Amino acid sequence: MKTADLSEKYLELVSKAELVDYGPARGTIVIRPYAYAIWERVQEVFNKKMKVAGIENAYFPLFIPLSLLQKEKEHVEGFAPELWLVTHGGGEKLAEPLVVRPTSETIMYTMYSKWVQSWRDLPILINQWNNVVRFEKRTFPFLRTSEFLWQEGHTAHKNEEEAIAMQEQALEWYRQIYEDYYGVAVVLGKKSESEKFAGAKTSYTVEALMPDGKALQGGTSHNLGQNFSKSFDVTFQDQAGKTDYVWQTSWGLSTRSLGGLIMSHMDDKGLFFPPEIAPIQVVVVPIWGKDDVKVKEGIKSLKKTLEEFRVKYDERDIYTPGWKFNYWELKGVPLRIEIGPRDVDSNKVVVARLDTGDKTTVPMEQLTEWIKNTLKEQQVEALSKTKKYLAEHTHIVDTYDEFKKIMLGDKGFVRAFWCGNKDCEAKIKAETKATTRCLPLDAKEEKGECVYCKSPANYRWHFAQAY
Amino acid sequence: MKTADLSEKYLELVSKAELVDYGPARGTIVIRPYAYAIWERVQEVFNKKMKVAGIENAYFPLFIPLSLLQKEKEHVEGFAPELWLVTHGGGEKLAEPLVVRPTSETIMYTMYSKWVQSWRDLPILINQWNNVVRFEKRTFPFLRTSEFLWQEGHTAHKNEEEAIAMQEQALEWYRQIYEDYYGVAVVLGKKSESEKFAGAKTSYTVEALMPDGKALQGGTSHNLGQNFSKSFDVTFQDQAGKTDYVWQTSWGLSTRSLGGLIMSHMDDKGLFFPPEIAPIQVVVVPIWGKDDVKVKEGIKSLKKTLEEFRVKYDERDIYTPGWKFNYWELKGVPLRIEIGPRDVDSNKVVVARLDTGDKTTVPMEQLTEWIKNTLKEQQVEALSKTKKYLAEHTHIVDTYDEFKKIMLGDKGFVRAFWCGNKDCEAKIKAETKATTRCLPLDAKEEKGECVYCKSPANYRWHFAQAY
Repeated sequence: MKTADLSEKYLELVSKAELVDYGPARGTIVIRPYAYAIWERVQEVFNKKMKVAGIENAYFPLFIPLSLLQKEKEHVEGFAPELWLVTHGGGEKLAEPLVVRPTSETIMYTMYSKWVQSWRDLPILINQWNNVVRFEKRTFPFLRTSEFLWQEGHTAHKNEEEAIAMQEQALEWYRQIYEDYYGVAVVLGKKSESEKFAGAKTSYTVEALMPDGKALQGGTSHNLGQNFSKSFDVTFQDQAGKTDYVWQTSWGLSTRSLGGLIMSHMDDKGLFFPPEIAPIQVVVVPIWGKDDVKVKEGIKSLKKTLEEFRVKYDERDIYTPGWKFNYWELKGVPLRIEIGPRDVDSNKVVVARLDTGDKTTVPMEQLTEWIKNTLKEQQVEALSKTKKYLAEHTHIVDTYDEFKKIMLGDKGFVRAFWCGNKDCEAKIKAETKATTRCLPLDAKEEKGECVYCKSPANYRWHFAQAY
Repeated sequence: MKTADLSEKYLELVSKAELVDYGPARGTIVIRPYAYAIWERVQEVFNKKMKVAGIENAYFPLFIPLSLLQKEKEHVEGFAPELWLVTHGGGEKLAEPLVVRPTSETIMYTMYSKWVQSWRDLPILINQWNNVVRFEKRTFPFLRTSEFLWQEGHTAHKNEEEAIAMQEQALEWYRQIYEDYYGVAVVLGKKSESEKFAGAKTSYTVEALMPDGKALQGGTSHNLGQNFSKSFDVTFQDQAGKTDYVWQTSWGLSTRSLGGLIMSHMDDKGLFFPPEIAPIQVVVVPIWGKDDVKVKEGIKSLKKTLEEFRVKYDERDIYTPGWKFNYWELKGVPLRIEIGPRDVDSNKVVVARLDTGDKTTVPMEQLTEWIKNTLKEQQVEALSKTKKYLAEHTHIVDTYDEFKKIMLGDKGFVRAFWCGNKDCEAKIKAETKATTRCLPLDAKEEKGECVYCKSPANYRWHFAQAY
């Protein structure tokens, strides 16, 4: 699919399905209730995972004195072009501008440095759900917005092994969110030096592939080493009485991911949300008109039967059933139940399945089981579809000509040897718009030569054009 | 209690109990995990109430063009002194400054005006959980901070009756949060013209009384009438085809309320959180040392028994039981279970009750029931205590001398006739620091004369000095 066609359809659908609208300030969007419900589901799922690991939620200030940001050199250089600055408060000019947080490393670690003295205070395992802003010239709903919502986890440990285990755990959680909930296949890997987070030692990423062959960075998890703890003086005394800097991680998943979820499953007719993430799993549309008392009885018994699912009963009488069918299909609800007086009489309902278009008559006594199984099937098939797409659009490439041809054509991931030199990476980007997306965590060492400069290279990296 | 003593103790406890810390930017605080867990509990409880009423969560942008705020004259005048302004983004000066939201009426209703055309689009019932900023010179954790978290509900209706019903419903929810969860007695009432929300037709409030006799505005619910819909052109066509402006409400409850919760129940030794809101209802402290295998068995069986409560098992071996007792008492956990090898042998545990200081030996088979009943009792008693305090510190006053004497002494609420004239209200404030807190919703019409100017007056208002 061409990017232009995909974008056009996407923009039409996210608007029609009442997921987003454009805010009046540059680069901002409104996340409307139907989309926000997906984000609430992400929060619910992710909070459970974090809780098991002992990670607690907290809230740190939105405003960061500019001087704090400047304490970590690489960090401020990475973020400088994207900053929003507050210069006035209470009618007066501020002595020092405040940065509206683009991320919270600097403000959190200023606090950590006060809170940590001894190994007894470690690990610190804190997450926050908040809003962050990064200047963007052009808005693309969810995927590129000046303000977005996310979770940012920030941990401090007594040694690097613990930090790396945390970094890997967070990445695994992101894989689960994408694959098990969004039904979107991802590649797990390490970022190159030039693509890693500003201030990190290593950055891990989950990368998905959109239907136009462009990659989406889905979530990142960083081993910060002791870079920030040295800049922010976060030290602890170990059990032997020796003072050392803590080892840190940070990791984030944002509402940008909703763009990947939507794009991966939409088609010409509308959206599709895999059941595990769908705010509404089943919509019930009553067929009013012939015997409303009977239909109401039927709905009453459905409400008991379907308690364990996320169900919307669209009992409005100002719209026809046909109108409602279209409305909820556009909104991507995986299953629709139609119930009229005859269905109540025969103790059956008609269930329409959005992803296959199948319609099935299901006896009431089998309904719970049938829905449970079908939702499971839909979830599995959603992931299979994106896995298949990802596999079919991942190309092992050994020549630069072939590389360029793919980037001019259907795109996708290119697996090519790269020498690790920043210049080659930059030239490839300038000439093909493709960047190193990651070195897969399970990449095998091989003997090869850089697809660009022919120098010896040991690993095939994933390259792609990216959102 | 004197304000200075209360403040000193409060500041000591919120810091020692690891509820908050001060952020580096003026007026900002860090809400640490233990305090944030209370806020998460508020969110959980409040989301359930809203869901039943059909209110959906969404998210609107943080940045509001200054010109939008200026559309409603009274609104911008009310907020002008508190605004924080963004003037630079992406390295460039912005053509128009952006306001960092102090509240979201203006940005939300700009969107509502696009979304509402017909009576079919009404009501709009939207809430958001977010951060807002209002310039403050001096910080007082929770109660006075430049940034705070809150929920802001914003609804649009086809007539004023529906809007008023919503306004009353929101106020009732706030009463429930305060009385049924926080265990803090409140007075429900209407704000005076000069104290109401900038741009509202009427503002309702729940007002609590702190231990120093000063009132705390606990949450407010506004009937906006058609003030904003006229400024923002939010119109609809009714069923008869006539175009009218929508009727609106907005209502908010913030993390400021946590200050009221904390102050109302703390004492010299530490905090106390009523069980319904406590992040931890029961802390289990094992007595390590003599037979750890046995104690671990005991904890394992406790974990099954106490599944329905919010329990913390403090199994750390780096602190003594005595240290832990103090730690969790300071943090205000309502019940503590001590379990040693002998308790496991005799199938009993010792439970210490924080609010009364009682220690009781409870057989394991009665433990669930005992805890359930005791937590209920603690909840009821917490509210009784604040109800009693509120009643004892509410004074019916008929002369200005008496009024002044009370405000110089123990303070509290003064119920006095007021003629409704802004000048009297302003002079009373200037001379006694007391403001009209509210006219209670259940106030009876009486014949009297204004406590200040002696003109005829029909109602006794609640006056108090306030946070």
